[in-house]
Amino acid sequence: MVDILHKVGIEGSSTEQVYSALTTLDGLSGWWTEDTTGETDIGDVIAFRFAAGGFDMKIVELNSAKRVQWQVVDGPEEWIGTTVGFDLRQDGDYTIVLFKHAGWREPVEFMHHCSTKWATFLMSLKMLVETGEGAPAPRDVKIDSWD
Amino acid sequence: MVDILHKVGIEGSSTEQVYSALTTLDGLSGWWTEDTTGETDIGDVIAFRFAAGGFDMKIVELNSAKRVQWQVVDGPEEWIGTTVGFDLRQDGDYTIVLFKHAGWREPVEFMHHCSTKWATFLMSLKMLVETGEGAPAPRDVKIDSWD
Repeated sequence: MVDILHKVGIEGSSTEQVYSALTTLDGLSGWWTEDTTGETDIGDVIAFRFAAGGFDMKIVELNSAKRVQWQVVDGPEEWIGTTVGFDLRQDGDYTIVLFKHAGWREPVEFMHHCSTKWATFLMSLKMLVETGEGAPAPRDVKIDSWD
Repeated sequence: MVDILHKVGIEGSSTEQVYSALTTLDGLSGWWTEDTTGETDIGDVIAFRFAAGGFDMKIVELNSAKRVQWQVVDGPEEWIGTTVGFDLRQDGDYTIVLFKHAGWREPVEFMHHCSTKWATFLMSLKMLVETGEGAPAPRDVKIDSWD
């Protein structure tokens, strides 16, 4: 099992602000994909849709301003059963986000793609909270010919 | 042992162009760090320097227009002994770059940082080859409070 790991530091923000961007439809649609629907309590499923498909995420943990954890319940075969988590902490003027997409069965080419793509989306989250304007799909940063 | 994986597709480029950006001082200083010195044959060491320190990479494999592999011989303790590799292939109008920074002993916070940072530098490589202008240090994209 192999994991995708990332870190961003969001300047001039509180963990509460970043937590809101990770736990509300308004926040999520501002940095990952504009087409975000569903309910946002523990046990609920959020549907994230992109031109090429999408992901259904079941919310398995919400620890206010500290931790968000999803389980992938529908989407590409390689994603199903994997988990996506965000750990938050304050570090001076920064909110530090430690990201982990865990449980990939094999380090396939699609995992390479998703690793780079997650980095660009986390930079979009950073931009959203710092400036009010992220780059969610379909206005997302394109990284390769699969985009 | 855990690895950092990434993928970018560089549009309108040949594998030879990308290989050049990975194997010449002029190319490397155009996307990773402007302060790049050393020799560039197999067995040689290239010194990459940043404001906070740097990395010495021994070139262990050069497979023309297909593969570049380095071993980290000096730098942060977590990096020493790890390997950094780039595999290239043509896919229509794109050169596909599969990147792997392998052999991390533990998934420490610094690995999360480096994973995101590598993504931004690979996007810099893409920009350099596509447009002639990358974003090497010290003009690199800042991702957190360690930058």
